Amino acid sequence: MDTATDAAARFEEMWAALLPIGRDPDGGGYRRFAWTPPELECRAWFLDEARRRGLDVERDRNGNLFAWWRPDGAAGPAVLTGSHLDSVPGGGAFDGPLGVVSALAAIDLLRARGERIGRPVGVAVFAEEEGARFGVACLGSRLLTGAIDPSRARALRDGDGRTFADVLAADGLDPDAIGPDDDLLGRVGCFVELHVEQGRALQEPVGVASAIIPHGRWRFDFTGEGNHAGTTRLADRRDPMLPFAHMVLAAREAAARRDAVATVGKVHVTPGGVNAVPSSVAAWLDARGPSDDAVRGVVADVHEAVRAAASSHGVAVDLSEESYTEVVGFDTALRDRIVRTLGGAPVLPTGAGHDAGVLAARLPTAMLFVRNPTGVSHAPAEHAETADCLAGVEALAAVLADLARG
Amino acid sequence: MDTATDAAARFEEMWAALLPIGRDPDGGGYRRFAWTPPELECRAWFLDEARRRGLDVERDRNGNLFAWWRPDGAAGPAVLTGSHLDSVPGGGAFDGPLGVVSALAAIDLLRARGERIGRPVGVAVFAEEEGARFGVACLGSRLLTGAIDPSRARALRDGDGRTFADVLAADGLDPDAIGPDDDLLGRVGCFVELHVEQGRALQEPVGVASAIIPHGRWRFDFTGEGNHAGTTRLADRRDPMLPFAHMVLAAREAAARRDAVATVGKVHVTPGGVNAVPSSVAAWLDARGPSDDAVRGVVADVHEAVRAAASSHGVAVDLSEESYTEVVGFDTALRDRIVRTLGGAPVLPTGAGHDAGVLAARLPTAMLFVRNPTGVSHAPAEHAETADCLAGVEALAAVLADLARG
Repeated sequence: MDTATDAAARFEEMWAALLPIGRDPDGGGYRRFAWTPPELECRAWFLDEARRRGLDVERDRNGNLFAWWRPDGAAGPAVLTGSHLDSVPGGGAFDGPLGVVSALAAIDLLRARGERIGRPVGVAVFAEEEGARFGVACLGSRLLTGAIDPSRARALRDGDGRTFADVLAADGLDPDAIGPDDDLLGRVGCFVELHVEQGRALQEPVGVASAIIPHGRWRFDFTGEGNHAGTTRLADRRDPMLPFAHMVLAAREAAARRDAVATVGKVHVTPGGVNAVPSSVAAWLDARGPSDDAVRGVVADVHEAVRAAASSHGVAVDLSEESYTEVVGFDTALRDRIVRTLGGAPVLPTGAGHDAGVLAARLPTAMLFVRNPTGVSHAPAEHAETADCLAGVEALAAVLADLARG
Repeated sequence: MDTATDAAARFEEMWAALLPIGRDPDGGGYRRFAWTPPELECRAWFLDEARRRGLDVERDRNGNLFAWWRPDGAAGPAVLTGSHLDSVPGGGAFDGPLGVVSALAAIDLLRARGERIGRPVGVAVFAEEEGARFGVACLGSRLLTGAIDPSRARALRDGDGRTFADVLAADGLDPDAIGPDDDLLGRVGCFVELHVEQGRALQEPVGVASAIIPHGRWRFDFTGEGNHAGTTRLADRRDPMLPFAHMVLAAREAAARRDAVATVGKVHVTPGGVNAVPSSVAAWLDARGPSDDAVRGVVADVHEAVRAAASSHGVAVDLSEESYTEVVGFDTALRDRIVRTLGGAPVLPTGAGHDAGVLAARLPTAMLFVRNPTGVSHAPAEHAETADCLAGVEALAAVLADLARG
């Protein structure tokens, strides 16, 4: 068996081990929320794989995991790769895990080929990348880089009302110790994240990221008056579901007008009874676009439409920004070097947020994308062909070898 | 202390005992879903109160409870009163419990006055009146009277996926034995339910029901395609949230046009992630109106609007009727007799469904309403003044005395 065939077998073996964890038996995709049993099982799998390879494992103060390959003589700032293991509700198998599995497989390939490595190579597993549990995406990398206030992070609550601080403490981490970690960042020279592409823009097996478009999340709270669905005259109602419906339609219209995208994917109705006019509705808007102006414009348009509708129904509306990330342009020198290493590759922007986008504020950062034939992501049908994944492993190995040559 | 003062004290004592059970500590009202711990605690309280009074307690095959007062010499068909102890999510204190507590207080009053009773008097606690757990309102009385197929009832599932059959079995009931109970109904001559009024139409402390207007529940299932909120172009989306929003607005418009009411109070979004285009949305429509045509017309209008919106977004829509009750006209002879007994009383229809409406298909049935100063119901602010509640007890006692005189 040659080294490439051997690396392919290791990749498929690792992939098969992760596949059953947190999968909905009815085909509803994955549910691996941060620090829930399926995600903890994925993390345990990662630590086990790292130890089997003799890598040095490290958990930082923010709950991110690292596995370090430090060959004899390797010195200087490390080359970091990796991704995350948590998922959105009903997520696909590739978003996150592909970057982690490919990183381990790339190290296997470099070792099998006896590649000379002059710098440490690290594989990161960042915590709560999707924000599916605590509402803030890239929470682990934001804490590491200082992009979120630790006291705000500690107070975040999951859907069951548990705080992030409590969840950290239950896992043996000190909630008071979370926050920026310049010591750790100081040991890293650059970060390259491999990720499944999430649209249909990539026509070749592997591409390189140019930028992450501006994106954010906003919460709208509509407060009306709960009442009986049968005995309350229409004129007497203050029904928050009505301005919420206007919000959904206004978001679509504003996004179309501004060449952006906007999504309402989560809504919480209180009390949620069939025969009760709701007392309140909380709804989340995800908006992304080619420019800050486009995204801010979508939110402003929706807010205006919603205020008018809420007012006409006697409903109060409150808007809060949960997160916003301006355009992230990846390091052009690093990107150009990667494209050269790969002998040329398509360069494309993405509408998806990533830990690489957060780390880009502190380090030269780049991303490799693996082709997604249907463009479906954050859904069970998310897919990449095995041949493309293996091409991704080859590309990542080449990039790590080049960057870690010293 | 005279008998009225004594009865008032007993009413208030019973009321105070029930008040803390299943109450949201943050002011969000009551959550007493059928066969959950708070509702079981209410049932235990009822059985205890009945036994303290020396009443004969009985649980029927369908999980309904009865407490029978059979004074010496009482014979013939019983006069049945009572209501239910379950609640909608975030419900008020009065909807259901007022009828049960008033029934026990009315029996106390009749006994204290040495009233001569020639027929048995029963107090019923019907199961799952709100349908908040298994989706079908008045489930206990529907089973008792044969208004729902037992095999359909057995297969109903709660929000956690537990079947009604499993829940019955866990409470020691035989799921295969549920269904019509002509033996029990044969022992009952008539049913009078006291209930808090749920609108603002009643200007006096106590009124009498004329009819329950037609009402029903329908479920709309929108099936689109889950996808990534950032990378999926608007043109590539099949987003079920959009036709759902049209459904909410169409329901309001159709109800206004047809002098009816329509409510969308419950919605379930899958997967429900902020950064994912939903794959499906399930939403419930509650519609009620002055005539079958009005209600059927609202549903047809909404269905037409929703089909058009769904089609334009590449979303499939499926409509199913969960329950429908045609207009229920209460027994006019019984109603007239009650109005005479009370020395005159306002007679009014209601938009709310009740077990009395289900029993009306099998028995002469009537309802007493107690004034609701704000008209709020199915919400924490639901209220009735104590003086009005006590007037209700007096009225119910007078009606029971008249009907049970023999």
